[in-house]
Amino acid sequence: MKFLDTRSPDFQAELEALLAFETAQDPKIDQIVADICADVQKRGDAAVVEYTNRFDGTSAQSFADLTLSQDDLKAAFARIPADIQTALKTSAARVESYHRRQKLESWTYEDEDGTLLGQQITPLDRVGIYVPGGKAAYPSSVIMNAMPAHVAGVKEIIMVVPTPKGERNDIVLAAAFVAGVTKVFTIGGAQAVAALAYGTESVPQVDKITGPGNAFVAAAKRRVFGVVGIDMVAGPSEILVIADGTTPAEWVAMDLFSQAEHDEIAQAILIATSQAYLDEVKAAQEKLIAEMPRRAIIEASLGNRGAMILAKDLDEACETANYICPEHLELSVENPQEWAKKIRHAGAIFMGRYTSESLGDYCAGPNHVLPTSRTARFSSPLGTYDFQKRSSLIQVSEAGAQKLGKTASVLAHGESLTAHARAAEFRLKK
Amino acid sequence: MKFLDTRSPDFQAELEALLAFETAQDPKIDQIVADICADVQKRGDAAVVEYTNRFDGTSAQSFADLTLSQDDLKAAFARIPADIQTALKTSAARVESYHRRQKLESWTYEDEDGTLLGQQITPLDRVGIYVPGGKAAYPSSVIMNAMPAHVAGVKEIIMVVPTPKGERNDIVLAAAFVAGVTKVFTIGGAQAVAALAYGTESVPQVDKITGPGNAFVAAAKRRVFGVVGIDMVAGPSEILVIADGTTPAEWVAMDLFSQAEHDEIAQAILIATSQAYLDEVKAAQEKLIAEMPRRAIIEASLGNRGAMILAKDLDEACETANYICPEHLELSVENPQEWAKKIRHAGAIFMGRYTSESLGDYCAGPNHVLPTSRTARFSSPLGTYDFQKRSSLIQVSEAGAQKLGKTASVLAHGESLTAHARAAEFRLKK
Repeated sequence: MKFLDTRSPDFQAELEALLAFETAQDPKIDQIVADICADVQKRGDAAVVEYTNRFDGTSAQSFADLTLSQDDLKAAFARIPADIQTALKTSAARVESYHRRQKLESWTYEDEDGTLLGQQITPLDRVGIYVPGGKAAYPSSVIMNAMPAHVAGVKEIIMVVPTPKGERNDIVLAAAFVAGVTKVFTIGGAQAVAALAYGTESVPQVDKITGPGNAFVAAAKRRVFGVVGIDMVAGPSEILVIADGTTPAEWVAMDLFSQAEHDEIAQAILIATSQAYLDEVKAAQEKLIAEMPRRAIIEASLGNRGAMILAKDLDEACETANYICPEHLELSVENPQEWAKKIRHAGAIFMGRYTSESLGDYCAGPNHVLPTSRTARFSSPLGTYDFQKRSSLIQVSEAGAQKLGKTASVLAHGESLTAHARAAEFRLKK
Repeated sequence: MKFLDTRSPDFQAELEALLAFETAQDPKIDQIVADICADVQKRGDAAVVEYTNRFDGTSAQSFADLTLSQDDLKAAFARIPADIQTALKTSAARVESYHRRQKLESWTYEDEDGTLLGQQITPLDRVGIYVPGGKAAYPSSVIMNAMPAHVAGVKEIIMVVPTPKGERNDIVLAAAFVAGVTKVFTIGGAQAVAALAYGTESVPQVDKITGPGNAFVAAAKRRVFGVVGIDMVAGPSEILVIADGTTPAEWVAMDLFSQAEHDEIAQAILIATSQAYLDEVKAAQEKLIAEMPRRAIIEASLGNRGAMILAKDLDEACETANYICPEHLELSVENPQEWAKKIRHAGAIFMGRYTSESLGDYCAGPNHVLPTSRTARFSSPLGTYDFQKRSSLIQVSEAGAQKLGKTASVLAHGESLTAHARAAEFRLKK
């Protein structure tokens, strides 16, 4: 891991270099994705079947071979070990409970003239959830994407998940069963995104697509944005741990590993206020790395993008965190709730020594789909609110129309919009 | 205006054709915008000054010539007529009052094990507001974009507005003064969007860009999405009026005109339950069109994209509205609140005969930045919530870590993420 010191005159430059990540859109990928999207829009099912067979090494004859029913999901659930069944149910129940508290409710009020104002909240009709296949297939992601939609009241939740070489992941399908997914298509890539966005003979058009994917999926989501809603275009996963030295060094070392094991471009950063504690964590890492099956990935990730930062005090550590805007922030300190108040930008804040990021990843309740790459400056965790929308409500009373009409008329004439002005003036008493 | 009848076997096909609008991204515009963005990112102020002089016909020597201070805005406010000053203040006050009700608040709760869960709400630090210049300069849009940011608690609100041939619109600048804008740069186009997204020597990098613009602005917003947040990519403006025949036909005729006068691609649709009423509105239009300064635009818009639809009853009219997902929906009917409950997709619902869309456009309180082109299926009016974001809060208690740790461990092993499992297991009592 790199070592940075906030006292160094080069600290800000070094920090910027550490966080830099090339996110430029690849024009070649864009072109391939544009062609696939256009083809799926034009030829529907036939195009999706062809691309799926070509890219996923499957041999589907028709779309029916790529379709799973509720019964298929139930059967997958029945096949998995009992302890995983229980864990999926526990996780889903906790995620459901937390997300119920996020649900938006309609509201109205009347002003002094009897004019009613408010907002009507409705769920989306139908959403699509993209779940990556193959090695990076995460059942927990199924729960984290489907459950908020379910809680929001979305009637149809369509999941797509590619099955490279036809291999289905029973735990992923079981998670879909537990999380209330309506239907699953075993398709992926840009062709799956296009099918959900435009609809085909077999795939109903959805209103929004959420869920992570590779560069092709990200490019396709960006392309269909506007035709349907999308969640966000996720970058590499990140953790920032701020430690005051009161948490066992081994715990913090393992928390950093848990981020680094995702992939080589994941980022794990530790800020502490004493060199001695940084050394302790380093020693713990050296001891613990031996027992890690994903050792090579962890070493690559920490070597390329990991860092330990020595800060003067916790105030400075929090300021640095606000610049980093981490996806996951562990405040492994005493009185973490006080320090959390100083945090302006973070996807999720894990407070206190018992709150390892992994508890939040799986089952604490909050969502694990979080803003990455400094986008916590302007975006939020995936939530129930992402599957609801608002309609403004306005019912102007006759009295209200007299007052508002005059103001609207003046402003409309100021914008040379005469019909706007006249429409307001018609409502004035003669 | 076209005429459609829901009883026709071709109705659905005709409706789809009516709503169809080519929104394909133009690869030529994309390329020009990509080049401008890259150049601004590289050369900063100098590039912005060059593009501004070239595209806006200005002769700025340096960035200082493109910068307006609070004093400049105040001076503009002082120069405009008193009735417009008052109208701007009235509008801003009503918009502020409504948007205060939208403000999200932080919340937490404890589960039965003493684990704290919740969400911390924070405002964005700094936002950019794009305001079109020239003929389509709308002071009301300044209020509708800036006020929600102001209410959310955003500290810096940076506005950009092009001034073709150096011509400044005093009412636009006065609206910026009233709505609490921090600073104005007289720049526009892709170069303004790029300057806000990446920052230059003079323009501070913002966290989100909102506001409407032409095709170049839309392409630039789409491109920088991810580096900064954006609101939405707006399409042509639309109104759908559902009338039961109890509203004076002239009022409805003028409401349709008020949408149509925006531009040739705006869309105005009327659904009524009797042919006689449709005929009345048509006759009213023929009478009223003569007094419209923007007659040519209105006729082009209604001719190209306008329609009258005869429906069997109001239930069917509401179902059709849910397919159209209009930006503006007028329920010009008796008991409009009952009918509003049947509406699943609309940007704003204007209820009752006194609620002309224009009252909502200027001063009723709700925002006039609304989802267009059927995107009300998945998106919402611009609001205070667009300038706030959420961070999940989790503080697992020692007791909570015992239960959650087991579930997390099972699921992490199921995903072959050993470090995730070990981090949870470390928190279990030995």
